[in-house]
Amino acid sequence: MVNDSVLKALLEFRRKRNWEQFHKPKELATALAIEASELQEVFLWKTEEEVGHLLSSPSRGKVLDEIADVAILLSYLCHDLGIDLNAVVLSKMNKNEAKYPVEKSYGNAKKYDES
Amino acid sequence: MVNDSVLKALLEFRRKRNWEQFHKPKELATALAIEASELQEVFLWKTEEEVGHLLSSPSRGKVLDEIADVAILLSYLCHDLGIDLNAVVLSKMNKNEAKYPVEKSYGNAKKYDES
Amino acid sequence: MVNDSVLKALLEFRRKRNWEQFHKPKELATALAIEASELQEVFLWKTEEEVGHLLSSPSRGKVLDEIADVAILLSYLCHDLGIDLNAVVLSKMNKNEAKYPVEKSYGNAKKYDES
Amino acid sequence: MVNDSVLKALLEFRRKRNWEQFHKPKELATALAIEASELQEVFLWKTEEEVGHLLSSPSRGKVLDEIADVAILLSYLCHDLGIDLNAVVLSKMNKNEAKYPVEKSYGNAKKYDES
Repeated sequence: MVNDSVLKALLEFRRKRNWEQFHKPKELATALAIEASELQEVFLWKTEEEVGHLLSSPSRGKVLDEIADVAILLSYLCHDLGIDLNAVVLSKMNKNEAKYPVEKSYGNAKKYDES
Repeated sequence: MVNDSVLKALLEFRRKRNWEQFHKPKELATALAIEASELQEVFLWKTEEEVGHLLSSPSRGKVLDEIADVAILLSYLCHDLGIDLNAVVLSKMNKNEAKYPVEKSYGNAKKYDES
Repeated sequence: MVNDSVLKALLEFRRKRNWEQFHKPKELATALAIEASELQEVFLWKTEEEVGHLLSSPSRGKVLDEIADVAILLSYLCHDLGIDLNAVVLSKMNKNEAKYPVEKSYGNAKKYDES
Repeated sequence: MVNDSVLKALLEFRRKRNWEQFHKPKELATALAIEASELQEVFLWKTEEEVGHLLSSPSRGKVLDEIADVAILLSYLCHDLGIDLNAVVLSKMNKNEAKYPVEKSYGNAKKYDES
């Protein structure tokens, strides 16, 4: 997720405020979904071109902040649940390789169970 | 986010399927929010105790898979937008330090603008 | 959803601003998900007891506003897609009756495909 | 939301399964957000044209089911919190009239606080 020194700073931020008590896994998952939704909101009603402009304007900072919030929550969650993110990503990618074989999925974004 | 070799594998997975065309920033943000929501769903209707049981049962795998999906989308998004996740997290944490001073926030999860 | 006169007012609100152009079904679905997430945010980090207090405090207005936003988007979506909400709810409830037979589901919130 | 007879059927569905115990406001809000996200998923990776095709294909049923799920959760929430949906929608629309004056908002979907 983030590197060890950033993770350490995040944990210190939380410990100093005595916020571990609020960070139950279910609450963290909710907070993560809320932040992901706030990222979506930055792009809402915008065309692809307008999103492009936004990303090279000062408003890019809003996107970075929301992405950071998602990453912060994900870091806490992985830390608290003892999850090795690289390992779970590789494991999930292997499952996706099976669900989406190249010959069937090339240039085709249909879900594996979609006709 | 994930380490360089995992990121390389993710990019290769995508390239082989010719899926870059679908990964516009706005779509990736939507996909990220959907996966974060699926993580929430694993915990829905469950008490804290039931979540604890789930996390030490075979169903833990579902949690890992959903967290992996979130991390995968976040990795693509950061890659495509040229975002240094450690840097943006540190920057956001600094803003949060100002919004949530320890003396005001100790043991208190209220939002900075909440009375 | 909402009654005919409220729906008429919503459509008039939109027409006056020439916003129909933004209300493509996919965008409306995204906006709906964002508003539902904002409703969640009002309750984030709060215990059941704290939610109870909030709901009988002046902050109740925030909950009402977010619920209204969800209902507004849902109303536009149903209008634009020609959906009879009462009919689709009844149809879905009938499916749920089959997926969740009383004898198996009594006092049990497990998903139908959850062991 | 839904009419009185549909609401009565929904409440009966819930009562028969003894599910009121799970329907705390915060959980209902989470369930609502999850269903709204599932609606988004039906449209994910699809162009506007593909969404149009989907909506006039047999897959339209998936859209109707997800919209029904959103409406069901919203109906329970409004019932349990004693919310008159028509009233709160009108009240919120009045606020939106002030935030988005026609002369400033005509053909422009920018958020009221967006530059």
